[in-house]
Amino acid sequence: MENEVLKQLKERKSVRVFEKREVSAEVKNEILASAFEAPTAGNMMLYTVIDVTDSKIKERLSVLCDNQPFIAKAPLVFVFTADYDKWYKMFNAAGLSPRKPGPGDLLLACSDAIIAAQNTVTAAQSLGLGSCYIGDILENCEKVRELLSLPQYTLPAVMVVYGYPTQQQKDRVKPRRFDPKHIVHENSYREMQPEELLSMYGETGSKESLEAFCKRKYMSDFTLEMNRSVSEHLKNFNK
Amino acid sequence: MENEVLKQLKERKSVRVFEKREVSAEVKNEILASAFEAPTAGNMMLYTVIDVTDSKIKERLSVLCDNQPFIAKAPLVFVFTADYDKWYKMFNAAGLSPRKPGPGDLLLACSDAIIAAQNTVTAAQSLGLGSCYIGDILENCEKVRELLSLPQYTLPAVMVVYGYPTQQQKDRVKPRRFDPKHIVHENSYREMQPEELLSMYGETGSKESLEAFCKRKYMSDFTLEMNRSVSEHLKNFNK
Repeated sequence: MENEVLKQLKERKSVRVFEKREVSAEVKNEILASAFEAPTAGNMMLYTVIDVTDSKIKERLSVLCDNQPFIAKAPLVFVFTADYDKWYKMFNAAGLSPRKPGPGDLLLACSDAIIAAQNTVTAAQSLGLGSCYIGDILENCEKVRELLSLPQYTLPAVMVVYGYPTQQQKDRVKPRRFDPKHIVHENSYREMQPEELLSMYGETGSKESLEAFCKRKYMSDFTLEMNRSVSEHLKNFNK
Repeated sequence: MENEVLKQLKERKSVRVFEKREVSAEVKNEILASAFEAPTAGNMMLYTVIDVTDSKIKERLSVLCDNQPFIAKAPLVFVFTADYDKWYKMFNAAGLSPRKPGPGDLLLACSDAIIAAQNTVTAAQSLGLGSCYIGDILENCEKVRELLSLPQYTLPAVMVVYGYPTQQQKDRVKPRRFDPKHIVHENSYREMQPEELLSMYGETGSKESLEAFCKRKYMSDFTLEMNRSVSEHLKNFNK
């Protein structure tokens, strides 16, 4: 069972080094069009895409997102912003005395934003472009909000950068995923025992490397900052 | 500029009525395989897919998700659960004294879960299956957690149901989206004025219908429940 769509979904891997080659307006618009046609709750499009074209803002984002210089070198940078602000203001503009958006509205809007983002990743690949998610856009709440002028009932859910991959990136082997038996549970959550969990990790890394992995991916400064920052973001939806 | 992937991304629309036709194990596995190959933060696969095959659990979910009987009739039902619980337990099992997962870890895991979900939607379509997101899985926190035995550091981010569309669903016109000029803002968020917001709504609905739309999609019981429920879910990541 194989088709072009399945093939591309399976082959997709993150790209962090781009050729020095512009992305045409036509290609950019095709990528964005795929976002707009993504599923969206109540047809409300609960997101705003910030299209970052200013190289100074790219530079600043590359610093604010855990100091990753390749972000500033990407020809295309989109921040998928969960956005209930526009609807709250629209309902107010119509004199409808809406309640304030809450954390449920926020998560629904995050879903909309991320679903749209993933369509752009798939669309970009079909046009020969690589992409990389930058989850670090969740960090530095105050500075990111100020830089992008984000109003209260928004949250920068994910950032994605795109560009044409270098040959080295094309040749890079995609990291292996865990065995599906750990990921799919039938009918209810199956709590995995320590032995299974450690053996799962062993499928992609050596068991000896787990301590270093934990330090790098979970105990490091950027994760502490992400947790602090998201707590701040969430306060906007609890006022 | 057109290719098969772009075409399918654009044509995809929600399907809520399914033929009485089973989904083969082969098709199901292809759909799941597309999830596993989706982008994932740090290659950690921060999600667990609950594959709901038990018709009693489908029935219960259809009630808990704002009483939508079509959920119980879907041949395929997946709950994409953001899951930091397994990593927290793995780090503990290795004696690494991890900190507790926080709200930043949760949002990152939600991104992973939703990105994977959107790949299954795209994969399903390429195999002739329709799908529908059920955001209402965010409601009824206590009952959903109990039904699916969800441990503390998890959250049911989205549910998706799939099946072969009836002819009527195939023929249904996809709802029109808003004009891109409202959705894409260059370099920073552009606060839209009341006139633009109301005119945006007018692109997909009559302006007279906005009050009814607001009542149905924003002021209704299910949205209040979603906000209450997500507040409860979030408490698990603030302990």
